[in-house]
Amino acid sequence: MFSLHPRLEADTIVLGDFPLCRCLLMNDAQYPWLILVPRHADLREVHELTEADQAQLLRESSWVSKRLCAQLDATKMNVANLGNVVAQLHWHIIARFEGDPAWPGPVWGKLPAVPYTDEELMETLHILKAALPSDGAVGLNWAV
Amino acid sequence: MFSLHPRLEADTIVLGDFPLCRCLLMNDAQYPWLILVPRHADLREVHELTEADQAQLLRESSWVSKRLCAQLDATKMNVANLGNVVAQLHWHIIARFEGDPAWPGPVWGKLPAVPYTDEELMETLHILKAALPSDGAVGLNWAV
Repeated sequence: MFSLHPRLEADTIVLGDFPLCRCLLMNDAQYPWLILVPRHADLREVHELTEADQAQLLRESSWVSKRLCAQLDATKMNVANLGNVVAQLHWHIIARFEGDPAWPGPVWGKLPAVPYTDEELMETLHILKAALPSDGAVGLNWAV
Repeated sequence: MFSLHPRLEADTIVLGDFPLCRCLLMNDAQYPWLILVPRHADLREVHELTEADQAQLLRESSWVSKRLCAQLDATKMNVANLGNVVAQLHWHIIARFEGDPAWPGPVWGKLPAVPYTDEELMETLHILKAALPSDGAVGLNWAV
């Protein structure tokens, strides 16, 4: 039975589901930062997924990455599985910009999160829904 | 024509080739840290690879990750494409240990690299060759 790690639950907003992964928005207004969590219980490493699920994870990741990069005109996309703190397998997709608060370093552990205001969150969801449409086969099945 | 970015050339030791990627060892004795570089010119983002090459990248990554994790009894594997500093598309695979110099944070930008001594490098290559054998279809074609 799949459930989100309490830390991911607390730090993110659920956007919806891909065929393999739940898609989350990190509640940190400093960076456009999405997280994919394969809906399997108790995996920690990407290499523990089946080869088919690994390919699907990257398909979903690249679908998000390509569209976010274009929509936001990002300088660089960062994609990663770290999981040193939260063990549940989760995959970061972060749009980075020259001059963002952590640039050019990684975002993790750099600065405390700055939660979205209600207004910022509504605007961000609006932008994300334009960038990541529900388009059937690959698209995100939005929950919000 | 594929060539390594000068910064990657300076900071790493070439281990060999997979079908898609050149496999490098970061010259930093603080972490077992490998880098895969798809042998394509001028790509920056994972999502710019063809879908087949994306799947192959993850196949090679997970082959390395699974074997390094088991051989070294790592606490966690970190896999990532950042590329904020070096634009050439490259993929990090790092074996992390509770108590390593950057734990539990990310390794990038944390501490200056500590180059291997000749003796440490020989020992590390010996361990890596045991963990990552040339085994035909998927294995690493060693150059050193």
